[in-house]
Amino acid sequence: MLKEHKSSGTLKIIPLGGLEQIGMNMTAFEYADSIVVVDCGLAFPDDDMLGIDLVIPDTTYLKENLDKVKGFVITHGHEDHIGALPYVLRDINVPIYATKLTIGLIENKLEEHGLLETTRRKTVKFGQSISLGCFRIEFIKTNHSIQDAAALALYSPAGIVVHTGDFKVDYTPVFGDAIDLQRFAEIGKKGVLALMCDSTNAERPGYTMSEKTVGKTFDSIFSEHRKERLIIATFASNVDRVQQIINAAHRFGRKVVVEGRSMVNAIATATELGYLDIPENTLVNIDRMKDYPDEKMVLVTTGSQGESMAALSRMAADIHKKVTIKRGDLIVFSSHPIPGNEKAVSNVINSLSEKGADVIFQDVHVSGHACQEEIKLIYSLVRPQYAIPVHGEYRHLKAHANIAMELGIPQENIFILKSGNVLELNGEGAEVTGQVETGDILVDGLGVGDVGNIVLRDRQRLSEDGIIIVVMTLERGSNQMLSGPDIVSRGFVYVRESEDLMDGARLAAEEAYESCMAAGITDWGRIKTAIKDALGSYVWKNTQRRPMLLPIIMEA
Amino acid sequence: MLKEHKSSGTLKIIPLGGLEQIGMNMTAFEYADSIVVVDCGLAFPDDDMLGIDLVIPDTTYLKENLDKVKGFVITHGHEDHIGALPYVLRDINVPIYATKLTIGLIENKLEEHGLLETTRRKTVKFGQSISLGCFRIEFIKTNHSIQDAAALALYSPAGIVVHTGDFKVDYTPVFGDAIDLQRFAEIGKKGVLALMCDSTNAERPGYTMSEKTVGKTFDSIFSEHRKERLIIATFASNVDRVQQIINAAHRFGRKVVVEGRSMVNAIATATELGYLDIPENTLVNIDRMKDYPDEKMVLVTTGSQGESMAALSRMAADIHKKVTIKRGDLIVFSSHPIPGNEKAVSNVINSLSEKGADVIFQDVHVSGHACQEEIKLIYSLVRPQYAIPVHGEYRHLKAHANIAMELGIPQENIFILKSGNVLELNGEGAEVTGQVETGDILVDGLGVGDVGNIVLRDRQRLSEDGIIIVVMTLERGSNQMLSGPDIVSRGFVYVRESEDLMDGARLAAEEAYESCMAAGITDWGRIKTAIKDALGSYVWKNTQRRPMLLPIIMEA
Repeated sequence: MLKEHKSSGTLKIIPLGGLEQIGMNMTAFEYADSIVVVDCGLAFPDDDMLGIDLVIPDTTYLKENLDKVKGFVITHGHEDHIGALPYVLRDINVPIYATKLTIGLIENKLEEHGLLETTRRKTVKFGQSISLGCFRIEFIKTNHSIQDAAALALYSPAGIVVHTGDFKVDYTPVFGDAIDLQRFAEIGKKGVLALMCDSTNAERPGYTMSEKTVGKTFDSIFSEHRKERLIIATFASNVDRVQQIINAAHRFGRKVVVEGRSMVNAIATATELGYLDIPENTLVNIDRMKDYPDEKMVLVTTGSQGESMAALSRMAADIHKKVTIKRGDLIVFSSHPIPGNEKAVSNVINSLSEKGADVIFQDVHVSGHACQEEIKLIYSLVRPQYAIPVHGEYRHLKAHANIAMELGIPQENIFILKSGNVLELNGEGAEVTGQVETGDILVDGLGVGDVGNIVLRDRQRLSEDGIIIVVMTLERGSNQMLSGPDIVSRGFVYVRESEDLMDGARLAAEEAYESCMAAGITDWGRIKTAIKDALGSYVWKNTQRRPMLLPIIMEA
Repeated sequence: MLKEHKSSGTLKIIPLGGLEQIGMNMTAFEYADSIVVVDCGLAFPDDDMLGIDLVIPDTTYLKENLDKVKGFVITHGHEDHIGALPYVLRDINVPIYATKLTIGLIENKLEEHGLLETTRRKTVKFGQSISLGCFRIEFIKTNHSIQDAAALALYSPAGIVVHTGDFKVDYTPVFGDAIDLQRFAEIGKKGVLALMCDSTNAERPGYTMSEKTVGKTFDSIFSEHRKERLIIATFASNVDRVQQIINAAHRFGRKVVVEGRSMVNAIATATELGYLDIPENTLVNIDRMKDYPDEKMVLVTTGSQGESMAALSRMAADIHKKVTIKRGDLIVFSSHPIPGNEKAVSNVINSLSEKGADVIFQDVHVSGHACQEEIKLIYSLVRPQYAIPVHGEYRHLKAHANIAMELGIPQENIFILKSGNVLELNGEGAEVTGQVETGDILVDGLGVGDVGNIVLRDRQRLSEDGIIIVVMTLERGSNQMLSGPDIVSRGFVYVRESEDLMDGARLAAEEAYESCMAAGITDWGRIKTAIKDALGSYVWKNTQRRPMLLPIIMEA
């Protein structure tokens, strides 16, 4: 229980997203007149969010406390941590703090949205701290599936909170240093109020393997397939993975072509900022592929998740402008399917196989997230008073809570929060004391938040059985039918082969109108309802479908 | 190469489905004036088949050769092998031959569709043969995730074809005998022309474990959770799995409740036919659950694939009428997610966990399909001249072909067929000599085949951005506007909050009409196109969305 009126005051931790899903990570830390926001990510739409491009968190709470908000502190450059920035910055234009590569990737995004000039941003080095209101925030080196990932130590008058960001423990990273375990220990020694730690792999026992093990796998693949053209698909932002492909290519005397817009952009940014070391004359433009024999080529491409518009999917579907898959090509998926993408990935594998390519899709990938033993390691170094599992669906958070309990954290000191929960804490207690507005803001084209449940429900209905529109023109006053009823349908049946059905529908609508006239019903609302009812029964009886029914009455 | 004019004639093997996907299994075997059809399954719709209930194979070829078709021979009672029967029988009313449980499950289906009286059917025992035209067909015992699964030996004048159906090798089955490996060997000794063998697990090394190993897992789960209520979800048709749950319940002194319509039906049929052995006083009606304490209860339920309307999903969503999930319940998924269902299953696990239940979702399942070593075993017993991998997506068929090659079958004797291919073969050769009409027939409500690509494309478009309808009434002859244009939209934006946008749309339509009038354009087709173009540009510019645009002109 939280005791009130303490000398140190209380720290509020308010997650605005990221706790019901993998995605949309955003957490507000509030102490007195200062709010610091950690991460600002998007989520990709669920299957039932038809037509939606992406989802961002509701930031009403921040807008209502705009004068307190001191800045965004970003842990790393993945979309689920930076993707909402261009939308959120429109209302909350405060400075962004992050490490070099993360700032580079954010700048690409700001440029796309024309926000580069109006957004303040500052690059922070590992070991450095920044002061934001009454917070001091230290950036600590970690490892992840993107470079320059940081954990944060947030120093507040109420105590220290350590936020791991997304991390794994890689003792032998491809680029840069291993995770700064010493610093985690040092801060732990000082006494840590709360640990907010990555839960993604909390269900998985053991350790996540080093990224370097994938390099060894590449070496054997390159060595066993010296004659074939190699096409390797992986995540655009995993620069270390691309580095290892380039290294293998260099060793085995192959040229590297990079394909897919997001991959080209990520590699350009990483190269420019010095995170990628490409030997001279290794990269080749895709237009020069024809100058080299197959055994001298590696193509690195997007599309490892079966995304329909990505380069590899276009190759598989034979609609890629510059690459045609042929018998003997070796295609490597250096990835695991993200849950939900399994079928799309499988479809791409089938299409590639049908074209005669061989496909390797297992064991050429390691995760970027800590497994159970790594989570235990961090707890043992940091030894927090409170545990707040973050970054995961409920099942992951719960598995994480079980680990924390095993390590001796009392159950009442472990908080599985929900988005919007206000957790107030200090050295003397912790308690959820309130709830702020949160939720999914849907982005569809230029519209941010203009598609809600009603529109989605209509899209769902339309997608299942289509729409039948009944139009008629009635005379002002008399309600006499001047023209119609006309029946128009879309997405219901192939009309040319269903003329009887559509004639019957027209008749049902007409009879409903006649009945209204006979009964002296003149109210258009009631006439429309009668038509809808009659048409609905007719259609259900004849097809057992429930298309959307839309009567329109024109007045003339 | 197939030599013509041979004394033995040629056998035609014509797959009508099942080779591009897991589902819709159906193969015609034709010799002279006789056609025998093996299996008659449905497929579940792909994600892009919006609103479709199920998919059945195109049987045009059979309808065109109706006088030749002697019967359906069904290998086992899974939906992907029997589910299309009620639809196909309407046009092709020939007798059905299958083992006892399979016939029982088919009869349930026929009864639902009112086809029980008009359909001839015959139960066949393992080891028995039936004669259909110039074919003799022998049923051979196998093991699978449903009882009474059969392999078939099809004896034709051109040679013997062995079709495994779906199978695994289970030396210690829960019920009945192990696969009749001796008979496979005996037939192999006679000389087999072609082997058509299950490819589902051809990518997996090793052996599939015995169903009995799951029983041992149940024993440890029951033994380690003596206080909790147990809820176990599995496939409705896996009667052996249910038997093992009942056995464990009996041993540990628990009562069993069965929930979910398809599970209740499957268990009723299996019990009636003697495939399930339920100790007295073990089964309890769901309404009597409240009479027993939690530690005396096991609930066996449908919903292991996260299907939205299944019992477990309804419990997870708190809309099940009779079961409320509570803290401490132990829920076991005795299943693996079928590809494409991962996210739905994960959502159910999250909801159950949030309610305080513990969830076990790993290692309480074994596959019903043969892995690589079992496939090799069958090849080594049957020693076919030709290999025709069946039952799988292309990637599985290809993995299977690689196994056959490893075993010494020459590449030119391995046929990865596509649906509709006519493979002609005899002892002197084999060749794809033609192609018959095949494809997906979509079933939507009562409609069979009335939804095609045009309707699906419309549903896709409607699902993404909705529809905008423009209605106007024009005077006959003068084309003067009597009323409208009115704008109605569904699934586009929430209209009440987008009045300016909708006013603008109305104006764009009106201006397009005025321009037509000014230019002397009187053709309604051209007026509609002008309105569509103007409206489309306006909407794209303001929203970057592409709703369906539907101008309707009424004449009065």
